[in-house]
Amino acid sequence: MDNRTLDTDILMEESLEKIIEWLEEKKYFQARDELLKYNAVDIAELLEEICEESDIDKTIILFRLLRKDISVEVFAELSSDTQIDIINAITDKELDYIVSELDFDDKIDVLEELPANVVNKILENTPKNERKLINTFLNYPDTCAGSLMTPDYISLDKEWNVKRALDHIKSEGMDAETVYTCYVRDNGRKLLGIVSLSTLVISDEDVKIKDIMVTDYVFENVYDDQEDVSEDFKKYGFLAIPVVDNEHRLVGIITVDDILDVMEEEATEDIERMNGVIDWENSDKGYLDMSVWQHALNRLPWLLILMVAYIFTGMIITKFEGKLSQIICLVAYMPMLMGTGGNTGSQAATLIIRGLATNEVDTSDIIKVLWKELRIGLIVGSVLSVVNFGRVCLLDGNSPEIALTVCVAMLLIVVFAKILGSMVPLVVKMFKLDPALIANPAISSVSDMVALSIYFAMASLFLNL
Amino acid sequence: MDNRTLDTDILMEESLEKIIEWLEEKKYFQARDELLKYNAVDIAELLEEICEESDIDKTIILFRLLRKDISVEVFAELSSDTQIDIINAITDKELDYIVSELDFDDKIDVLEELPANVVNKILENTPKNERKLINTFLNYPDTCAGSLMTPDYISLDKEWNVKRALDHIKSEGMDAETVYTCYVRDNGRKLLGIVSLSTLVISDEDVKIKDIMVTDYVFENVYDDQEDVSEDFKKYGFLAIPVVDNEHRLVGIITVDDILDVMEEEATEDIERMNGVIDWENSDKGYLDMSVWQHALNRLPWLLILMVAYIFTGMIITKFEGKLSQIICLVAYMPMLMGTGGNTGSQAATLIIRGLATNEVDTSDIIKVLWKELRIGLIVGSVLSVVNFGRVCLLDGNSPEIALTVCVAMLLIVVFAKILGSMVPLVVKMFKLDPALIANPAISSVSDMVALSIYFAMASLFLNL
Repeated sequence: MDNRTLDTDILMEESLEKIIEWLEEKKYFQARDELLKYNAVDIAELLEEICEESDIDKTIILFRLLRKDISVEVFAELSSDTQIDIINAITDKELDYIVSELDFDDKIDVLEELPANVVNKILENTPKNERKLINTFLNYPDTCAGSLMTPDYISLDKEWNVKRALDHIKSEGMDAETVYTCYVRDNGRKLLGIVSLSTLVISDEDVKIKDIMVTDYVFENVYDDQEDVSEDFKKYGFLAIPVVDNEHRLVGIITVDDILDVMEEEATEDIERMNGVIDWENSDKGYLDMSVWQHALNRLPWLLILMVAYIFTGMIITKFEGKLSQIICLVAYMPMLMGTGGNTGSQAATLIIRGLATNEVDTSDIIKVLWKELRIGLIVGSVLSVVNFGRVCLLDGNSPEIALTVCVAMLLIVVFAKILGSMVPLVVKMFKLDPALIANPAISSVSDMVALSIYFAMASLFLNL
Repeated sequence: MDNRTLDTDILMEESLEKIIEWLEEKKYFQARDELLKYNAVDIAELLEEICEESDIDKTIILFRLLRKDISVEVFAELSSDTQIDIINAITDKELDYIVSELDFDDKIDVLEELPANVVNKILENTPKNERKLINTFLNYPDTCAGSLMTPDYISLDKEWNVKRALDHIKSEGMDAETVYTCYVRDNGRKLLGIVSLSTLVISDEDVKIKDIMVTDYVFENVYDDQEDVSEDFKKYGFLAIPVVDNEHRLVGIITVDDILDVMEEEATEDIERMNGVIDWENSDKGYLDMSVWQHALNRLPWLLILMVAYIFTGMIITKFEGKLSQIICLVAYMPMLMGTGGNTGSQAATLIIRGLATNEVDTSDIIKVLWKELRIGLIVGSVLSVVNFGRVCLLDGNSPEIALTVCVAMLLIVVFAKILGSMVPLVVKMFKLDPALIANPAISSVSDMVALSIYFAMASLFLNL
C-alpha cells in the first residue's frame, strides 16, 4: 500500500469534516486556514468535496478567501462545473486576475470548457495579442497536438554563449515543466535545434549555443493526432517535444505531464469501444457527470446493430425448429455453445486490438496470428469438449450421440471463434478503421450465427435429423 | 496523421531493405553506416526487424560493428530475447563493457529478464558495492515502486549555496531525466527536501540550499504499488518523485518516462482481465512472443468457470422443456434476450470498472450509480422493446401475445442487467478485489440465468403455459 497516500487520505478526510463543521458555524477563516495546510492540487480536491457535501455558495466564499496567488493554482485544478460556478459568482476584476495569471495551457483548457458567452466576456478584457493567440489555440481540433501544446517556452539565439542563455532563462523565470528544454529558432521562427537545460548547466560558460544544440530532434506537427504524439513520448522518453506548423515554424511545445492524461483518455476510449460504448461527444466528463440520456445514446447504437444480427440468428433457429422439437434437449446446450463462442472470440479480439494499439502486433503479422490462434483454438476447444462430454453423458444423462454432437460442435465453434476474433481486428485495421470500434459488434453477430449453424449441422450429422 | 513519423517510417523501411540486401552481400560496413543515420531507439527497432527478416547471426555481427558508446544505448532498447542472443554471442570483455556502461535502471531491467546463470556471470565481474546494490534492487517485487526507481540522483547538502550546488551538478554530469530535481539529505540519508534544477538556475549564486528547498514534497515508499505511483504522477504532474524506505531514507527516484510504460501495462492488464484473459505470468511479453500453451492457459480459466454456470442455464431450460416444445417459436428469441442482457450488462460494468480505475467513481457513489443505471436501463430497454415488438409481429408474423412476452422480458432483462453490471464491480471493489478480474465472469453467468428465468416467467404469464 501507498503509506503516504493513505496518510494523506486520512488527514484530508479529517480536515474535510472539520471544515464542513466550521462552515456550518460560519467560521470561514478557520476553515480557510485548515485548507491552506495542503498544496493546490489537494485544496482543489477538498473544495470539490465540500461543494458536494455542503453547498456551492459556501465553497465560493471559501475560494474567495484564499490568497490570490494560490487561488489561481487551485482554480486551474477544479472541475469545469465548479469553475463555471465560481466565474458566475466572482467580480469581473477577480475573474480578470485569475485569467491573466493562469498558465497559458491551463487558460486554454478552462476556456474550452466554458460557455461561449463567458468566454467572450473573458476575451474582451484580454490584450489583443494574447486574444489572437488564444483564438488560434482554441481552434485546433480537440485531439491534435495543437490542442495539447503551450506557447510558453524558452527560445535562445544560436550565436549566444551558455552564460547569456542561462541569464536569459533566469530573467524569464518560467514554470519548471517548460524550462528543461530550450529551443533555437532562426529569424523566420523556423526551429533550428534544441538544447536541454542540463546540457547548459554542465557546459562551460563561453561555449556557443550552436555548438551544443541538437539538430536531429523529434518534433510534431500541430495537426498530428494526440495518439501519435503519446507514442513518440513513450518511444523516446522525452520530457517535452516541440510542435511546428507546415513551414516548420515553432508554434509551441508539449510537455510529458499532459501526455499522462492523453494516455488515460486513449485507454478509456479503447476500453469503452471494445465493450460497445461509443462516446459520441468525445467528452472528458466522468461517468457521474453525464446525463442518463447521453449514457443511453452512447450505448444504444451497438445494441441496435446486434438486434439486426439477431433477426438472422432467429431465422436460423426457425428453420431448424421442426427438428429441434423432436429432440428438445438440444435447446439446453444452445446458450453454452453460443456464449462460449462469443467469449472465446472476444478474448482473441481483445489481445489483437490491444497488441495493435501498443504496436506489438502489426497487420503484416496476419499469417503468424492465424497459425497461433488456430493452435490455441484446438487446445482450448479440446479441453472444453472433454469437460463437456463428461457433463452431457454423466451429469445430464443424455445419450453419447448427443454428447458427441455437443462436443464436436464445441471444438469447431471455439476454433472458428478464435480465428474470427483474431482476424477481424487485423482486417479492420487494414482498412484504416479503428479495430476497437468495429471489431466487437462484427464478431458478436457473426459468431452467434456460425455457432448455431455448426451446432445444427452436427446435430443433423450425428443424430440423423 | 503524424507527418514526421510517417516520413521516418518510410525512411526506415527503405533503410531496412538496403541493409538486408547488403548483409546478404556481406557488405557489413555499408550496412552499419546506414544504421548510424538513426538514433539509438530507431537503431534498436531496425535491428529487431533485421533479426526477424534476416537472421540473428548477421544481426549480432552488425551490432558488434557499432561504436561502443552507441552499442550500449542500443542494447538497452532491444527486446530481452535479442539481448540474450547477443550476450551469448559476445565476449566476456564486451559484455562487461556494456553492463558497466548501462544506466542503473536499464541494467536492472536487463538483469531481471536474463536467465540466472547469465546474471551470475555478469555479477561476478561487477564491483562488490554495486553488486550489493543490484541485488537489493533485483529483490523488489516486480510491481512496486522499488522496481521502477534508479539510484542515480543528485544529492545536495543543505548548507551549500547555489553556486556550489551547480558546480556539483556539473561535475556529476548525469542523464537529463534524472538531473532536473535534486535531493537534500541529512547525514543519516534521511530526505530533508527537494530543489528543482530550474529553481537553482533562476536563484542567485549565494543563496543557501536550505532556504530554497521544498519540504512538503510528495514521495513514495519502496513497497508502494506502481499503480499508486502512477496515480501520483498523474495527479501532481511531476517529472520525478523520490522513493524512501520505512525510515524515510532516500533510496532512489522514479522519473516520469518510466511511468508511461507503467500506465500502458496497467491499461493492458485491465483490458485483458475485463475480457476474460488472465496473465498468470504477469509477463511483459508481447502477444507474438508468448507460446500457444501460455495463451491457452491464460484463456481457459474463465471459460471453464462459465462452463459451470452453463450447467445451471441448461437446468433452467430443461425444466421448461415441456412447455417450450409446445410453443417452439419461443426458442428463436432466446439468443437475442440472453445476448442483449450480456452486452448491456457489460457496457455498464465497463464504465464502472474504468471509472473506479481513474478515480471518477468511488464505492461511496453506489446509490447514485444505482439510480442512474435504473433510469438508463428503462430508456434503453424501452427503445429495444418497441423495436422488437415490431419485429416479432410484423417481420416474424407471430401473435401479439408472443410479442408482448418477448418485449416485456426484454425491458426487464435490460434493466436487471444494467443494475447487475454496475453493482457487481462496486461490490467487488468493496471487498478490496480487482473489479476487472472478477466482475465479468460473475456478470455473464448470473445475467444468462436471470435472462432465461425472466423470459420463461413472462411466457408462463402471457401465454398461459
